[in-house]
Amino acid sequence: MSIITLTTDFGAADPFVGIMKGVIAGRAPTARVIDLTHGVPPHDVLAGALILRHSVPYFPRSTIHLAVVDPGVGSERRALCVETAGTLLVGPDNGLLSLAAPRIEIRRIIHLTAEHFFLSPRSATFHGRDVFAPVAAALAAGTPVEKLGSEVRDMQRLDLPPVVREGHALRGQVIYVDHFGNLVTNVSAADLAGLAVRAPSIGIGNVRLRGVAPSYAAVQRGEPVAVVNSWGLVELAVREGSARDQLGASVGAAVVVEA
Amino acid sequence: MSIITLTTDFGAADPFVGIMKGVIAGRAPTARVIDLTHGVPPHDVLAGALILRHSVPYFPRSTIHLAVVDPGVGSERRALCVETAGTLLVGPDNGLLSLAAPRIEIRRIIHLTAEHFFLSPRSATFHGRDVFAPVAAALAAGTPVEKLGSEVRDMQRLDLPPVVREGHALRGQVIYVDHFGNLVTNVSAADLAGLAVRAPSIGIGNVRLRGVAPSYAAVQRGEPVAVVNSWGLVELAVREGSARDQLGASVGAAVVVEA
Amino acid sequence: MSIITLTTDFGAADPFVGIMKGVIAGRAPTARVIDLTHGVPPHDVLAGALILRHSVPYFPRSTIHLAVVDPGVGSERRALCVETAGTLLVGPDNGLLSLAAPRIEIRRIIHLTAEHFFLSPRSATFHGRDVFAPVAAALAAGTPVEKLGSEVRDMQRLDLPPVVREGHALRGQVIYVDHFGNLVTNVSAADLAGLAVRAPSIGIGNVRLRGVAPSYAAVQRGEPVAVVNSWGLVELAVREGSARDQLGASVGAAVVVEA
Repeated sequence: MSIITLTTDFGAADPFVGIMKGVIAGRAPTARVIDLTHGVPPHDVLAGALILRHSVPYFPRSTIHLAVVDPGVGSERRALCVETAGTLLVGPDNGLLSLAAPRIEIRRIIHLTAEHFFLSPRSATFHGRDVFAPVAAALAAGTPVEKLGSEVRDMQRLDLPPVVREGHALRGQVIYVDHFGNLVTNVSAADLAGLAVRAPSIGIGNVRLRGVAPSYAAVQRGEPVAVVNSWGLVELAVREGSARDQLGASVGAAVVVEA
Repeated sequence: MSIITLTTDFGAADPFVGIMKGVIAGRAPTARVIDLTHGVPPHDVLAGALILRHSVPYFPRSTIHLAVVDPGVGSERRALCVETAGTLLVGPDNGLLSLAAPRIEIRRIIHLTAEHFFLSPRSATFHGRDVFAPVAAALAAGTPVEKLGSEVRDMQRLDLPPVVREGHALRGQVIYVDHFGNLVTNVSAADLAGLAVRAPSIGIGNVRLRGVAPSYAAVQRGEPVAVVNSWGLVELAVREGSARDQLGASVGAAVVVEA
Repeated sequence: MSIITLTTDFGAADPFVGIMKGVIAGRAPTARVIDLTHGVPPHDVLAGALILRHSVPYFPRSTIHLAVVDPGVGSERRALCVETAGTLLVGPDNGLLSLAAPRIEIRRIIHLTAEHFFLSPRSATFHGRDVFAPVAAALAAGTPVEKLGSEVRDMQRLDLPPVVREGHALRGQVIYVDHFGNLVTNVSAADLAGLAVRAPSIGIGNVRLRGVAPSYAAVQRGEPVAVVNSWGLVELAVREGSARDQLGASVGAAVVVEA
């Protein structure tokens, strides 16, 4: 039984995700579909890529990850299937798949050109339904990757903003804000270890936090706290509150870690 | 293995949909449940009907479509199962099922009166749990439609607002706004073809668009564009933006297509 | 085939729920996962407990209910599995499981200490992924409850606010507000029956309603109405509208029922 995960910016109000599942159910009746999220901010390819990167490792080998954050739908942007050592990624060639598929892990990239797998007629606005769901279903039903198109050499890639080291300081930024208003930064636990400071100062806006706490509960309710989160990244939170609201910060806000 | 789809206005905050799935799991353990959407605007029967119409064709034959947008729950409004050539529709008799079941395709309409299929006691506020989920489960488990009640001749019907032709112009309106803020009109690709104009002017409010573009990406980011969407309808969009917000339009807004 | 339900305050924007499903899929490939809701208000343990109480009875026996509303994640709060006559509840020891597990129905409470079932390394912020999902998967895959840790005597408990009887009046309050804006009170149908008044006055703020109606449709559109809802509780609603908005009430608002 194959697993297909779905990651989109389609939201929950419309039947678009359900329609994709209908297409899959018709073509791969025994495949199991698991939603990763459909709440990627509209057209935010980088957020989708980040979500995929941190989710894919928790799925069984051979899972098919179908992702659609696709502002270029209907244009000349390519549709891809990326095979890595452990997984298959299906989606548009706009960088969405790139953070979950480091160059070193890629076995091959297939440009999806075998149109007989697609729905016909094919709309100009919903390739999730007409291209990507049928292709993922074909893979789940056992179609070899190479039947889906022609191999290509590379794909569009996205990069997270880098953490910059300046002497004994790290300059990073907020790269993701979750449902709780937690501010996830690009500063990793490894970056922190590299600083070799026991309790670094972590600053965002006018707020300075001393050290990384073992858990949210290390501070009083309503107080800000820095932790290493489940993605291995430094996260600024407010215990039982919203750091986004309380610190007034969002994606792109500068974060400084220093002795 | 039967498929049951669910379409409701129950939203995501409450456990109501989950409870329906519990009832189904108990009575039809091998049925597969697929959510179409639970984000129908509260009590908006026409929106639910439109969603069903454009989703049902993408599901395998014999799929059971269970829909609950049911402001009359607990009153005398009937509960129905509608059998068409390819599908079974279960829900309240308020027009919700009508757009997915054109008169010509209906085989029979059953008024759901066989109360021994319902949960007991039956609440006055949640027939999704007490009536419709058990009936859909019974169908999935192989109960013949005719065991569920008595055949009736017709059901409540809803109509979409018509597109009016005036000389070389079509007067339509926005009938649905999606998660991205795209404005879906009642003007179909066939209506457009009937105009026999190569690049008609499409007007909404003070905005005039020239012709239907091949995709959203035909214009610059932030610019408005008209496309034929995945439902075969003319849609007004803003590339990587929200036409709802930028054009200030919502359901009911007038749209004029002319030479 | 085991069923695992999920109830969290994780929302729909992030992949956290999907990641938990990935962990479960890897460790209990044939388990079926059903979402109860992920829209519990952030950190609102009592709302989660109330949702579980009213949902669990609609699931087949032996269903595993996994719940994570867990402001104390990463602290010393215990992780539990509670076995009742018909079900298994897995989650943090903060009262979340208590309303669905009355003392009289509990067979045993296991403190989840068998760390070899957990993911390693274990984060300080996401025990849904690292502790609770693996444990639920282990149960679904047939692991006996007693292998998961050591039996303990009791757990944290939450109580709903009591309904107070004063002569011929009941003083209750709003304990839950649903997606439609319906105001669910702690006054039960049994409380009402105890009053032995045919059409009691039900007051909230400046609004007085006369008697409990048989359904929402007993009043005109836009009018307020009291009904006994699907949880057996008195609910204040506005027909095809929002009582929350129209009556300006929320959780905690006082409700008086009197002759």
